Amino acid sequence: MRVVIAIDSFKGSLSSIEGGKVIETVCKQQNIEDVIMLPLADGGEGTVDAFLHILGGVRKTVEVLDPLHRQIQADYGWIEESKLAIIETAAASGLPLLVDEERDPYRTSTYGTGQLVKDALDQGATDIIIGLGGSATIDGGVGLLQALGVVFYLEDGTKLPIGDIHLEKISSINIDHMDRRLKDKQLFIASDVTNPLVGPEGAVYVFGAQKGLQKQDMDGFDQAMDHYQRLVKETLGRDESETPGAGAAGGLGFALYAFFGGKFRSGFDLICQKANLEEKISKADLVITGEGKIDSQSLYGKVPIGVSRIAKKYHVPVFVFTGKAEGDLTDAYQEGISSIIPIIDEVTTLEQAMKEAPSYLERATRRTIQILRTGRAIQNKK
Amino acid sequence: MRVVIAIDSFKGSLSSIEGGKVIETVCKQQNIEDVIMLPLADGGEGTVDAFLHILGGVRKTVEVLDPLHRQIQADYGWIEESKLAIIETAAASGLPLLVDEERDPYRTSTYGTGQLVKDALDQGATDIIIGLGGSATIDGGVGLLQALGVVFYLEDGTKLPIGDIHLEKISSINIDHMDRRLKDKQLFIASDVTNPLVGPEGAVYVFGAQKGLQKQDMDGFDQAMDHYQRLVKETLGRDESETPGAGAAGGLGFALYAFFGGKFRSGFDLICQKANLEEKISKADLVITGEGKIDSQSLYGKVPIGVSRIAKKYHVPVFVFTGKAEGDLTDAYQEGISSIIPIIDEVTTLEQAMKEAPSYLERATRRTIQILRTGRAIQNKK
Repeated sequence: MRVVIAIDSFKGSLSSIEGGKVIETVCKQQNIEDVIMLPLADGGEGTVDAFLHILGGVRKTVEVLDPLHRQIQADYGWIEESKLAIIETAAASGLPLLVDEERDPYRTSTYGTGQLVKDALDQGATDIIIGLGGSATIDGGVGLLQALGVVFYLEDGTKLPIGDIHLEKISSINIDHMDRRLKDKQLFIASDVTNPLVGPEGAVYVFGAQKGLQKQDMDGFDQAMDHYQRLVKETLGRDESETPGAGAAGGLGFALYAFFGGKFRSGFDLICQKANLEEKISKADLVITGEGKIDSQSLYGKVPIGVSRIAKKYHVPVFVFTGKAEGDLTDAYQEGISSIIPIIDEVTTLEQAMKEAPSYLERATRRTIQILRTGRAIQNKK
Repeated sequence: MRVVIAIDSFKGSLSSIEGGKVIETVCKQQNIEDVIMLPLADGGEGTVDAFLHILGGVRKTVEVLDPLHRQIQADYGWIEESKLAIIETAAASGLPLLVDEERDPYRTSTYGTGQLVKDALDQGATDIIIGLGGSATIDGGVGLLQALGVVFYLEDGTKLPIGDIHLEKISSINIDHMDRRLKDKQLFIASDVTNPLVGPEGAVYVFGAQKGLQKQDMDGFDQAMDHYQRLVKETLGRDESETPGAGAAGGLGFALYAFFGGKFRSGFDLICQKANLEEKISKADLVITGEGKIDSQSLYGKVPIGVSRIAKKYHVPVFVFTGKAEGDLTDAYQEGISSIIPIIDEVTTLEQAMKEAPSYLERATRRTIQILRTGRAIQNKK
């Protein structure tokens, strides 16, 4: 029997690799001959690991500036064979790099992420994937652009200093010295967020609070962002602020798209493509996927539905392991899912369940294979 | 596909019939053609219901005396076709008939159960099953014997009054007017208890407290019971007080065995036999059993192991649903169980889990059939 394991992370409990390995180990213990484990990721934490697991490769460590422009070491993934770099925005510009009191969108920038991109270009990257999850910034990508040679001038002819995110002060943008190597590369922006740059659904109002922006500063910050995007439009001759995803990672999505022609893709689509997921699924007898939580509301944005749609094309059955199944999931079954299997199997608290997720997943996998095997044996007798 | 459902009760949550019906309903919804549902019972609560479900029949209602000799109406099961009566001791002589303060082994007797037996004999019963679970009494079966014509004399030549359980006062036993109809009938004593009548493992010390006996009265009560069994031995010429099960239901087991030649059987064995469980299992593709709790300690006394041993003989796979699986259950798998499937599938409290047991069991059954069916489909493709 050939099994493809392609699970998302169980957020807060298990990365997609950890979860995938649990399932893989049980499959092998149960003498399933042929197991392919492809961890999935959404562009956030775990994206580099997932790509490295699937494609092989190494982590490159680079001296860069963190969101508050302190020297740190940050990693990105490097696949030498295909000259592919995978960069997580969180690595150099992420919230986990700050303590709570340091969250300050007037100062935090994506400069370090720009440095990672530059390093990848120096390595000879022809493909770059930038995952936009977990940024600490709302700088419209200005920091990254500065690191890549774009200059922002103020009214008085001086340059906007690094880490001064008062975008209303910018009076002109100069791209003469912009690192143009990026323009003829395959640049993918891995993001599951479709927000525009400005306005009520934009980077400031929707994601500002979690990055430390005070409520009373939101209007002003959004107006500054709007001023900035107008200047970009004048400079580049294109209006890209409404592009879905422009508001991702505090406007970093906008900068990568407008200045460098990056293409928005879901993390899932990128991994599917790079991992040849469809081909592997087409040859499988069974697909096992999973996600921390499955509910009727967010069903269609979730990895399991993406996986099961592919599997459905090839009539391959799909099992979905989950920490929590909620609401009416009838639709899920119409997308090709054979069974949604919650992993919790005893009286427990949420806290305990998060901690015990590896054992729960292990036991659920074992039971599922036992039942599956029983079904095969019954059919075999007929 | 032919499925035999043979579950025990999930104590405190689901009777074996309720649980069996949940599973049966899901099986039918999932288009399983051939489903046989046989609820199991251990001689305690639910035994009559289980037999009536399996064999068809009616409930007979009789005016009898409760443990404190108040008039009540009590039921027993009656299968006209086979002239089989099924009597639960708890119906006329059970703890649920008393409020806590009324528990008093010096007064509570099994007289009412004797009346039920008498009624069954009047109906023309040729087979009688008496389930010993849940009695409120430690009367050595004296009440039942009185109802069936046995007379207990005191030193002064008067008769022991009904409801006076001071067995040390008995000086002789007269069986001249005992209802001898019972002796040439098939009398089965359904009990999962193997305690002797007297001594540290006997009816008084082990079960006295739950029936309201005070600690300081235990020694005296046990001595009185010993005096009683000696008189029985003198009267009948046989010593049966050590027979395993003699101590069940406060010594009712002893009385039924010694005076009427009743045969001890586990409730499970009796139902298996009457329901032709083995024959039905032998023709099944799958057996579904279950139990409120499965643990490594009590594994071998449990219904699922009994069921799976039968199924193993015919190479029929067995699934065990349970509220709780505990400890190392490797042995269970060697007895023929294919998978032990806990029904809880979310973060929950014990209280909530008990309340939600029907939905948990329903969902667990649905998932199990989904997975099983997937296994069949995979095998079918090969």
